[in-house]
Amino acid sequence: MAAIPVSPLAPQSYPDLPEIAGVRFATAEAGIKYKNRTDVLLMEFDEGTTVAGVLTRSKCSSAAVDLCRANLPGGKARGLVVNSGNSNAFTGMKGRESVQHIADIAAKALGCPASEVFIAQTGVIGELIDASKFDGVLDQAATRMNALPWIEPAKAIMTTDTFPKLAGAVLEFDDVEVRINGIAKGSGMIAPDMATMLSFVVTDMPIAADVLQALLSEHVQKSFNSITVDSDTSTSDTLLAFATGKAQVEPITSLSDPRAQFFGEALFDVLFELAILTVRDGEGATKQVSVHVEGAVSDESAFRIAKAIADSPLVKTAIAGEDANWGRVVMAVGKAGEPADRDKLSIRFGDLLVAKDGERAAGYDEKATSAYMKGEDLELTVSLGLGEGSATVYTCDLTHGYITINGDYRS
Amino acid sequence: MAAIPVSPLAPQSYPDLPEIAGVRFATAEAGIKYKNRTDVLLMEFDEGTTVAGVLTRSKCSSAAVDLCRANLPGGKARGLVVNSGNSNAFTGMKGRESVQHIADIAAKALGCPASEVFIAQTGVIGELIDASKFDGVLDQAATRMNALPWIEPAKAIMTTDTFPKLAGAVLEFDDVEVRINGIAKGSGMIAPDMATMLSFVVTDMPIAADVLQALLSEHVQKSFNSITVDSDTSTSDTLLAFATGKAQVEPITSLSDPRAQFFGEALFDVLFELAILTVRDGEGATKQVSVHVEGAVSDESAFRIAKAIADSPLVKTAIAGEDANWGRVVMAVGKAGEPADRDKLSIRFGDLLVAKDGERAAGYDEKATSAYMKGEDLELTVSLGLGEGSATVYTCDLTHGYITINGDYRS
Repeated sequence: MAAIPVSPLAPQSYPDLPEIAGVRFATAEAGIKYKNRTDVLLMEFDEGTTVAGVLTRSKCSSAAVDLCRANLPGGKARGLVVNSGNSNAFTGMKGRESVQHIADIAAKALGCPASEVFIAQTGVIGELIDASKFDGVLDQAATRMNALPWIEPAKAIMTTDTFPKLAGAVLEFDDVEVRINGIAKGSGMIAPDMATMLSFVVTDMPIAADVLQALLSEHVQKSFNSITVDSDTSTSDTLLAFATGKAQVEPITSLSDPRAQFFGEALFDVLFELAILTVRDGEGATKQVSVHVEGAVSDESAFRIAKAIADSPLVKTAIAGEDANWGRVVMAVGKAGEPADRDKLSIRFGDLLVAKDGERAAGYDEKATSAYMKGEDLELTVSLGLGEGSATVYTCDLTHGYITINGDYRS
Repeated sequence: MAAIPVSPLAPQSYPDLPEIAGVRFATAEAGIKYKNRTDVLLMEFDEGTTVAGVLTRSKCSSAAVDLCRANLPGGKARGLVVNSGNSNAFTGMKGRESVQHIADIAAKALGCPASEVFIAQTGVIGELIDASKFDGVLDQAATRMNALPWIEPAKAIMTTDTFPKLAGAVLEFDDVEVRINGIAKGSGMIAPDMATMLSFVVTDMPIAADVLQALLSEHVQKSFNSITVDSDTSTSDTLLAFATGKAQVEPITSLSDPRAQFFGEALFDVLFELAILTVRDGEGATKQVSVHVEGAVSDESAFRIAKAIADSPLVKTAIAGEDANWGRVVMAVGKAGEPADRDKLSIRFGDLLVAKDGERAAGYDEKATSAYMKGEDLELTVSLGLGEGSATVYTCDLTHGYITINGDYRS
């Protein structure tokens, strides 16, 4: 398979994220699929680190996802192991034993209970991972842990991503700096063999696991859960947040602590930035598209309509062709199965009104709209005129690149 | 836009459908979008013809669909007008007036009430059709009506279809031959400007409109409602069945007439054949795929899982690449949101067992499975092991051709 060119939507530079006390990491080569390639990330957290997570809702979740699901209620984390090359999904009882073996090795290397180790795996589905490849590798990695630079773990978890994804935020509570660093991988359901969105966020904020979980669950909705590249949900999607508690501020122990909201907003900023970076590395993407729906009967209804538009192959191919084909947006609204009244429907491309009250807008300007479509960042807004519900879904266009990446790699 | 090559899945020849007493047709050039191009079909039915129909469920249905919906309860049909070049969808009150004008012209040309005229339109969305273009054209067409050959109306309704779609069935009741002829157009949500599945079926069977409607509604489920090219539902999808009643047999006036079932089965055969032809002309299609799901908790659940697989871009691109990537089928089952137990799941490609009880099948043969993927007609079977529910959805692969047709036509 030829190398995939870097996304034209890649950022010009990467943030230089600061150290976070209480976390160190190292990368390694375990030879899971290829030799001489970094394929493992080990992260170590100091004692007292709390953890929260959001995992795929797939009915065919991977063994690693099942292990995270089992360990999350404990609320404590000491280690994280991430590998590429094999997702170890759909590998039955032997798959479960293999992730347990990896957790055991990591626990021994880090000197912690295996129940405080979290694992995320991406790569081919249906092939049992050879857990013995981790023997020695994690022990050795544990001897050379660093706290910087954060681009290293961000790069280590890439598979067919064309650029590393990092984002951070800094808050102040009582003149003390609190830091949130995040990394992510994913470019849709990444080819060649199916993959996944993985994201890991680390903060030095002292915060109880249940509060962290509540904030994470809330803020994932308008970030990672509001993006779509190709409508395909992975068996391995994993978002984990770790809080080392090293910042010298009073711990947040309850959602009613007014600082919880501020912290949550900063957490959202990090999650949102990582989510957008993921869309901008969507397979074959040449444009980023924000689909806004307003005036729906509810936010949920608005979300489903926005998702129908963002997932429509006809809308996405029109955008790839820089075609102001708003008729396809009408089509997608119509097929969403949600309350909509054709004769109240209005559509804007950017600030340009293209349709109003169920027909083409009186002042519709084909030339201006076509010019708008040549941009790299597009905003489509649908106003339903029925109620107060609104939502935004972020996606990319559907190009030959997507077909090449996902369909052309076998000879 | 370059001409689209004929689908490699096109039939080698077309059936020579027989005349059906009580129906005649002519085609014409109204210059709706292009000059010197057949863009109108007029069909005339003798008095006494009953009608039934199934129309798009889109919330943004076209003016023509709305007119059919208004006229269907009458149960009588004398005329059908089909045009390409403009779907007249999303054109507000003026769109409604324009289809009424076309119905009035047709009624005058045929000497019948306008409420017994049906209209179907495809083409660009959001542009009001100039109904005056039909003035004279329908009158003139009405003077040169023929009953043969049926390939003529099948060709007249094509837009970006790469081949005409016809199917027929002949039954005998009391030694009297009864005929059913059908035509269809559609290749997904046909490009370049959004289009539609249209199908018209004509029989000489004397059958009450309500019985015809019941049979049509029943048999559309496992035919047209079980196909997907790109998951996008048109604003104009229209299936109409006309029964001239000219066959010299006792009329079917009730579903309890045992002949209703036989007739329904023959009707299904015609609908199914037309539906499969539509998939085989799917935009960019190089392979036809039948996705069978069995062992689901209900038929509805099986259908939703089969649809999730058939709509998955990753499954469809893998098929285009002749890649036996059954992991993507697992992914699609997992994301369907329907009851599924990973550890009871089995998958077959053709007769080849690739996964069993939640892991790769013991005797999995990569070479044989890859060889199977090179075929033109593929069968994927997913067994859930939960219940008795089953369903089949028919689709095609997702190739560069789809992107070219839908995304590349504007410079």
